[in-house]
Amino acid sequence: MKTPSAITAMSRVIALGIGVLLGQGASAQIDPLPSWNDGPAKKAIVEFVQTTTTNGSPKFVPPAERIATFDQDGTLWVEQPMYSQVMYCLDRVPALVEAKPELAKVEPFKTVMSGNREAIAKLPEAELIKILAATLTGMSVETFNAEAKKWIETARDPRWKRPYTELTYLPMQEVLKFLRANGYKTYIVTGGGQDFVRVYSEATYGIPPEQVVGTAGGTKYGYGKDGKPFLSKEPKLLLNDNNAGKPEGIHLMIGRRPVAAFGNSTGDRQMLEYTKAGGGARLAMLLLHDDARREYAYGPAQGLRDTKVGAFTQALYDEAKTKGWVVISMKDDWKKVFAFE
Amino acid sequence: MKTPSAITAMSRVIALGIGVLLGQGASAQIDPLPSWNDGPAKKAIVEFVQTTTTNGSPKFVPPAERIATFDQDGTLWVEQPMYSQVMYCLDRVPALVEAKPELAKVEPFKTVMSGNREAIAKLPEAELIKILAATLTGMSVETFNAEAKKWIETARDPRWKRPYTELTYLPMQEVLKFLRANGYKTYIVTGGGQDFVRVYSEATYGIPPEQVVGTAGGTKYGYGKDGKPFLSKEPKLLLNDNNAGKPEGIHLMIGRRPVAAFGNSTGDRQMLEYTKAGGGARLAMLLLHDDARREYAYGPAQGLRDTKVGAFTQALYDEAKTKGWVVISMKDDWKKVFAFE
Repeated sequence: MKTPSAITAMSRVIALGIGVLLGQGASAQIDPLPSWNDGPAKKAIVEFVQTTTTNGSPKFVPPAERIATFDQDGTLWVEQPMYSQVMYCLDRVPALVEAKPELAKVEPFKTVMSGNREAIAKLPEAELIKILAATLTGMSVETFNAEAKKWIETARDPRWKRPYTELTYLPMQEVLKFLRANGYKTYIVTGGGQDFVRVYSEATYGIPPEQVVGTAGGTKYGYGKDGKPFLSKEPKLLLNDNNAGKPEGIHLMIGRRPVAAFGNSTGDRQMLEYTKAGGGARLAMLLLHDDARREYAYGPAQGLRDTKVGAFTQALYDEAKTKGWVVISMKDDWKKVFAFE
Repeated sequence: MKTPSAITAMSRVIALGIGVLLGQGASAQIDPLPSWNDGPAKKAIVEFVQTTTTNGSPKFVPPAERIATFDQDGTLWVEQPMYSQVMYCLDRVPALVEAKPELAKVEPFKTVMSGNREAIAKLPEAELIKILAATLTGMSVETFNAEAKKWIETARDPRWKRPYTELTYLPMQEVLKFLRANGYKTYIVTGGGQDFVRVYSEATYGIPPEQVVGTAGGTKYGYGKDGKPFLSKEPKLLLNDNNAGKPEGIHLMIGRRPVAAFGNSTGDRQMLEYTKAGGGARLAMLLLHDDARREYAYGPAQGLRDTKVGAFTQALYDEAKTKGWVVISMKDDWKKVFAFE
């Protein structure tokens, strides 16, 4: 039979063991954001996590409500010179034309097959949408997943000649892990295709498919020749997860207002507004691409040009200042941009 | 300084402590399904969990892929004599008519206001949909949540005179907990309104809002008079989460095929087919309402009448037998139906 003091000692040991496993205790010594320079951005993240997860804090957020949402393109990984999903769709065109040779003479497929990069870059949005619809739909979910997975494993970005999945920002990966270690559920809320991002989100960000909200098309349930049921991807838009579509998508897919949100362009404006408008502690952050040497400089860093990719306007910058969103300067706030540096 | 043996002993104590906390070790002694009679249904559940969660088992399912989906009405709680959400909508009509008096003279609101139960029960589906649209949309998400929450807390079911949330099936609550204790993520996949079920799912089933997939309408992002952003519920159907809509909704909201699925009517057929058609161990279960004394008897228990609520046909029953879905007999398999018995 154990004595009371032996039980107390054992309880302490167990509590200590669990604390270490959960990353507590150690947090005082180890910097959770080693790739961040000290400054207002890092301070805002650390303080937000401490305030919302310390028991007894007036701004404590119960674990079930700890939801953090992240835009992907330009917030978690490189979006220049073109969204990687658009690269995927363009890369799929030759196989599509092989299967349907009549497309070779039809625009926009003709231009894509010409290989003329300048002409491809100039394709209007309506034509790009035709390419997206043709390469992302009309197949089973399994076929799409297999094709996208193969591409993600083999494609290389034009500047660094590396898989796109290596072009994630190390400091943001640290934020994802830091939040999760403190009980936050991390979600991607992307204008990109939900099915596309789900293919690599778990391996790349530690974010499971069910925590990816994105632009989503419909599927159709049916039966194959073998009688087995399958879902085919239909060219029907269910959710355009950009701009106002982001809070709408968050409501549809999560059903709670996030406590923290991260973005980098006008497409994230409403998500940041919606997040910040909730009660209690809220963190809204906007990543500024001002580092042409290590990554790219665009938006306000380049006189606020309204770029095709990652639009960032003066109005957005002003709103950030007015509403207390924290602007992250890639140049000043990040010690390292990529893990491979 | 600690000796190696002291460290080993400490590790054992920590491992033991964590094991107990996670519910391991104890599982060999404690029956996880005490409200179930021994029989093929209980056996199927216990064996499924053992096979899919035992390391080294040929049918082991990695924790990330442990997804189990549950229909709600008639599977997790009572659906007779009418879905509780329909009761909610009918109960909302007086307040609606007070706000818009012109509706008092218009069908179907006129019939609802008459209080004539027989006439109300006979309203055709198209008229019911008008009531649903009028009482579930045209307000902010926050207003809807507050109204639904108030109703759920105060409304009483006509037979047991208890809150609807007490009319959940104890044996199914045990299955939910048993699966979660073994690393499964449990989802509700309901034909009912997603926003409605999310209001009480966490308190009632331990299922958070983000794990409720249901029939969903669109929302619209806008700004209030105070300049604050809000989402209003629109009368626009995004997902009809019934029949083929269930696997389609699962793909949209979860993005993985479930390993286990539970239903009770033809509306769950495709979800059960889709779940069972995946590779490896799969569990598909169909609850048969054959207990008029303790709950209700309908479907096959009553000569397979195609009831308005919880339709269960001979074809569904045959498919269950052919495809290896396990039929749960409420009368034979459940020791207790409700916790309050």
